[in-house]
Amino acid sequence: MAGSTFGNIFRVTTWGESHGKGIGVVVDGCPAGLELDEDDIQRFLDRRRPGQNRYSTPRKEDDTVEILSGVFEGKTTGTPISMIVYNKTQRSGDYSEIAGYYRPGHADLTYDMKYGFRDYRGGGRSSGRETIGRVAAGAIAVKILDRLGIRILTYTRAIGPVSIDYSRFDRSVIKENPLFMPDRTAAGAAAAFLDECIKDQDSSGGVVECIVKNMKPGFGDPVFEKLDANLAKAILSIGAVKGFEIGDGCAAARARGSENNDEYTLSPDDEIIKLSNHSGGVLGGISDGSDIILRAFIKPTPSISTEQSTITKDGRSIQIKVKGRHDPVIVPRAVVVVEAMTALTLLDMLFAGMTSRMDNLIKFFKLTDGQ
Amino acid sequence: MAGSTFGNIFRVTTWGESHGKGIGVVVDGCPAGLELDEDDIQRFLDRRRPGQNRYSTPRKEDDTVEILSGVFEGKTTGTPISMIVYNKTQRSGDYSEIAGYYRPGHADLTYDMKYGFRDYRGGGRSSGRETIGRVAAGAIAVKILDRLGIRILTYTRAIGPVSIDYSRFDRSVIKENPLFMPDRTAAGAAAAFLDECIKDQDSSGGVVECIVKNMKPGFGDPVFEKLDANLAKAILSIGAVKGFEIGDGCAAARARGSENNDEYTLSPDDEIIKLSNHSGGVLGGISDGSDIILRAFIKPTPSISTEQSTITKDGRSIQIKVKGRHDPVIVPRAVVVVEAMTALTLLDMLFAGMTSRMDNLIKFFKLTDGQ
Amino acid sequence: MAGSTFGNIFRVTTWGESHGKGIGVVVDGCPAGLELDEDDIQRFLDRRRPGQNRYSTPRKEDDTVEILSGVFEGKTTGTPISMIVYNKTQRSGDYSEIAGYYRPGHADLTYDMKYGFRDYRGGGRSSGRETIGRVAAGAIAVKILDRLGIRILTYTRAIGPVSIDYSRFDRSVIKENPLFMPDRTAAGAAAAFLDECIKDQDSSGGVVECIVKNMKPGFGDPVFEKLDANLAKAILSIGAVKGFEIGDGCAAARARGSENNDEYTLSPDDEIIKLSNHSGGVLGGISDGSDIILRAFIKPTPSISTEQSTITKDGRSIQIKVKGRHDPVIVPRAVVVVEAMTALTLLDMLFAGMTSRMDNLIKFFKLTDGQ
Amino acid sequence: MAGSTFGNIFRVTTWGESHGKGIGVVVDGCPAGLELDEDDIQRFLDRRRPGQNRYSTPRKEDDTVEILSGVFEGKTTGTPISMIVYNKTQRSGDYSEIAGYYRPGHADLTYDMKYGFRDYRGGGRSSGRETIGRVAAGAIAVKILDRLGIRILTYTRAIGPVSIDYSRFDRSVIKENPLFMPDRTAAGAAAAFLDECIKDQDSSGGVVECIVKNMKPGFGDPVFEKLDANLAKAILSIGAVKGFEIGDGCAAARARGSENNDEYTLSPDDEIIKLSNHSGGVLGGISDGSDIILRAFIKPTPSISTEQSTITKDGRSIQIKVKGRHDPVIVPRAVVVVEAMTALTLLDMLFAGMTSRMDNLIKFFKLTDGQ
Repeated sequence: MAGSTFGNIFRVTTWGESHGKGIGVVVDGCPAGLELDEDDIQRFLDRRRPGQNRYSTPRKEDDTVEILSGVFEGKTTGTPISMIVYNKTQRSGDYSEIAGYYRPGHADLTYDMKYGFRDYRGGGRSSGRETIGRVAAGAIAVKILDRLGIRILTYTRAIGPVSIDYSRFDRSVIKENPLFMPDRTAAGAAAAFLDECIKDQDSSGGVVECIVKNMKPGFGDPVFEKLDANLAKAILSIGAVKGFEIGDGCAAARARGSENNDEYTLSPDDEIIKLSNHSGGVLGGISDGSDIILRAFIKPTPSISTEQSTITKDGRSIQIKVKGRHDPVIVPRAVVVVEAMTALTLLDMLFAGMTSRMDNLIKFFKLTDGQ
Repeated sequence: MAGSTFGNIFRVTTWGESHGKGIGVVVDGCPAGLELDEDDIQRFLDRRRPGQNRYSTPRKEDDTVEILSGVFEGKTTGTPISMIVYNKTQRSGDYSEIAGYYRPGHADLTYDMKYGFRDYRGGGRSSGRETIGRVAAGAIAVKILDRLGIRILTYTRAIGPVSIDYSRFDRSVIKENPLFMPDRTAAGAAAAFLDECIKDQDSSGGVVECIVKNMKPGFGDPVFEKLDANLAKAILSIGAVKGFEIGDGCAAARARGSENNDEYTLSPDDEIIKLSNHSGGVLGGISDGSDIILRAFIKPTPSISTEQSTITKDGRSIQIKVKGRHDPVIVPRAVVVVEAMTALTLLDMLFAGMTSRMDNLIKFFKLTDGQ
Repeated sequence: MAGSTFGNIFRVTTWGESHGKGIGVVVDGCPAGLELDEDDIQRFLDRRRPGQNRYSTPRKEDDTVEILSGVFEGKTTGTPISMIVYNKTQRSGDYSEIAGYYRPGHADLTYDMKYGFRDYRGGGRSSGRETIGRVAAGAIAVKILDRLGIRILTYTRAIGPVSIDYSRFDRSVIKENPLFMPDRTAAGAAAAFLDECIKDQDSSGGVVECIVKNMKPGFGDPVFEKLDANLAKAILSIGAVKGFEIGDGCAAARARGSENNDEYTLSPDDEIIKLSNHSGGVLGGISDGSDIILRAFIKPTPSISTEQSTITKDGRSIQIKVKGRHDPVIVPRAVVVVEAMTALTLLDMLFAGMTSRMDNLIKFFKLTDGQ
Repeated sequence: MAGSTFGNIFRVTTWGESHGKGIGVVVDGCPAGLELDEDDIQRFLDRRRPGQNRYSTPRKEDDTVEILSGVFEGKTTGTPISMIVYNKTQRSGDYSEIAGYYRPGHADLTYDMKYGFRDYRGGGRSSGRETIGRVAAGAIAVKILDRLGIRILTYTRAIGPVSIDYSRFDRSVIKENPLFMPDRTAAGAAAAFLDECIKDQDSSGGVVECIVKNMKPGFGDPVFEKLDANLAKAILSIGAVKGFEIGDGCAAARARGSENNDEYTLSPDDEIIKLSNHSGGVLGGISDGSDIILRAFIKPTPSISTEQSTITKDGRSIQIKVKGRHDPVIVPRAVVVVEAMTALTLLDMLFAGMTSRMDNLIKFFKLTDGQ
């Protein structure tokens, strides 16, 4: 089935393989009148670019985005926005060897099972380069959310065994270190750990955390289109993610009700105050206006140079070492992807939720009549 | 937006509130010719029935399902299967008090934020009774999967701090204990822990685990309709779930590549053998034919009798104790719901994946021509 | 595939067979706060009830609707509205004969081709009774549209060769005659023509016309979700419809550009005036605020008592006369069905179009913030 | 809402404006293993190319398609196929004048109503050039249908008042005349009529007819996803179409049941024979294996050089003559677009219908197990 489309109202369709002519995305359902140019997109793409330090692949991916449609005189027109990044630096030679066998931890085998054959160059469609389309689309979603006052903060929470300490949380630190951690001490320890992984020709997993500030209350649709259910799908659709949490997440399963419930009180000026936020900003699948907090658990890069057992396409057992230029950890590059998928989900659910009340509906049409 | 429909090809729409006239579901897209009667459904519903022991609410919910359409002469006709369970034992008096305030941990406040008002009787649509429709539909999905040779095993993995020990795993034990744990010792310890919670007028969370045997390889659609992404959405759409894992899940984030990769070899008769299953049966969002393993992390029941702070609808801070008949833990009753949602997801993705290859497509139409 | 759901945001799922336990519909995505009771629905159902005169089947169908969910204290709650009409007057004996052969003009053969067997009682799911669910849902859509100021007028335009004359158009006449024609003279001539059909044991086709007043301008989504494309699908989804027109429709194909274009001018108070409405209120798939005019072309009732050739399920050629109580024309009963499908389409497209402009979006969220 | 996607399983998303950088399409859900190259697509695009004779615009549109993804080593991979046609010959100067006023019969006004402003160059997204994406996608659908034995024949049935005579129907004539009519005499008369229109600075409408041979029986999904309902939407989604018919279409509304029913008999070797095909190959929304026959009624080109009244964006009444290079009739160029939309609809419904029966489902999975 067609699986390359995300969202119902703000709808994103990505295409492209690692070593094909390019990677692209069509964003359909973007409201007209948003100021948009290629710089808005490029800023986001640059956050996932490799080769910026020793913890990501030394491949130079000079990804430059071009907007092909849907923008006129500097503003979106309401019609599909097509964006493309041409693939420039493919070295197909690097990958020809893998055509014949199945790399452990990669999708080589399952693609062959599903499709009968595969574009083996650089992982084809299952390559991390596929996320370029998501990030380009996410940049637009983030811009619209920003206009509505909603902000998203995303960063690395853990690399392997090294986790941030919230008592040292410093937002300004995130962009200062190559691992995008908000805790300078943890960033140092994580770097040391990665050096060890590199030395061992091994790789590491990690955790990305995302906080949404100023989310509108009342969005997310019971019962199957819950806000957190859609976030879970969005996050698990990222290649290497193996777990998802909202709020206290897995820890809630070990808690008691008296610990896990978020009690309410009123502020001096009668605003509703939650005395805690174990729920992560969502109850019954609907946002309550407090911070949405989610986490993506990412497996270690499967491309490692230590020896592994595998089989060939023609049915032989062999031992391999995956060559080539690989990230010892993909977590820092996944930060912007998690942010993009979160933004795409939030925006689609905000749009979907505009029709939940007759009074608002009547106001909307009164407002826009005869404009 | 309409949020009460799940699935694209095998499509399920649920309706109903805790204290309305009934709870129901419409299953559309079920193949014709499946033998089906109300017993097939009732068996599943009975697995979520409360009042069977001291760890679930003493409310008697005598839920009897009736099939209203889509079955003729004992077989499905291919048209929508409508099923209803009438609500018989509502005691609305129990709930009238909660009309005026917002229970911590419940969706009372968010429903009011979204819709302006709510059916407060027994939680209305956000009640656990909503899952009756899911389970009824899931019973059909499980039956079809069974015909295709696919089996699902679901059980309680943990209650609060008490987790099963795989060295004591005994499948036959699951149905013998009221907590549906596959480990007799853990079940005993969990029961003791729950007794403590009850004594403290408190509640507990827990973990449900689900294993799919004999899944067909090659199903799940890159990139946004990955099998695990759809499973994550399905599981998070269950009311109290706060986290989701596939395979090693969150633990993968702390692993190294050399630990996390599943290596391949060949059996003596040239079958592909995975030397481990850290991935949980899915790579690149596509099934590989090995066991699918997933976990749902469930928060503690929010209805507790200890005193909590909250606010009233008309804006006053108050202290409350939630009265009424509540489960100290909902995990055992959620087991069949997790199984139902898993089955619905698998079936929809199996159907969606039938068109992935031209050779299979041509064979299918040759096979069915002139039948 | 699941085919019993209509609409994306205001989403309707119907179920039920002619002689099963009942016919029903689930309406999901209805805004909260709409006053609604069973009388609102019943009024619409009564418009399609047969047995009211000699031009419809003498079967008495005492269709009484019951609302099972989604309404609390007289108002919609925003959750699914489930409605049911129990089948009371099935006389299955009438239909047992048709189990073995395929009636010309009916879906008997194609259901068997698709599903391998069928519920033959009264046409099963392909019966006209299936439209009960559509009409019940349409009643809600019409009520919401009415709140937004949009009105729909639907009537019989032609019965067989007898067409209305617009110079005699009188809206008040529609409900006065059993054929729902807005022209008393044509209604008389059509009645005479139907008497002739009845005498000949034959049936007649006809045309339903629908006019939408005060449609909001700017709704309908290029390029595949055009307003007229969605209306065409909605109308053709009604069992016996074989043709669809918008505006001048088929006649436009014989016109010249100078005749077909609608020119614009300004009113004294600078309102846009269209000097004609050949387009039927839609240009480029988007409403322009003028009347939407559409037509449904309906084939004659296939159940006739004259002798016809057909084949049996076990492969014999036979001659049959279809017995039973049948309408000599279904057009008058289809009027409310066309109105329902039009309303469902308009409402879904109004909802879908709320996100077309950033300025309106920002206004909406400002309006509803902190409510 | 996102309106640029067509189909559920074989899903097509188009983008691009008349005078933007290019026009493109993403085809998602195409089975893997189909041999495909740019020639397959180009052949279809060439059928809609203008400037080939005096009845279409003398603009030279040298539309060359490029496949950007989804094809590897000459075969589809099952991943999205992105195709692009760069816009080369825009002469924006021609169109600058129309920025300020609304052309009668065009979507200028409605786009402004919907989006607040528009890309006025050459009609922007509402231009006929938008159909390039549909035709490119349709070429793939036609190729797959062909592999399944299904053939589509499309041609011009009428230009203004000149209609073909079926007694002179000659399939080989279609490609011989610039109007794509299957009747040499009618083609001559239509050409003479068009010469008259050109002389009068006017334009003409017409009718496209499409016949599907060897359609599989049993496809199309009751009740809202009927085959004919989906075809109606597909055809009405083409810019200038104002009416749709299946089988006898509008004429059925004037027929009697005894004339309109298609009776059945058996051939000497026990094949089912329909003695007529008034239904156009569809009953109850399901194909019966006989020819599907449909018609698209197309309005005259709105761009004419005779004087017309209109208004300006800033609210003045003016008289205009639309300049530029326009088709006196678009019907011949629409033939391939009707064919493309028909093919896209058929393929999507064939895919959707594969799960209608348990027996076929079980056979399919047995067939593909362990492949």
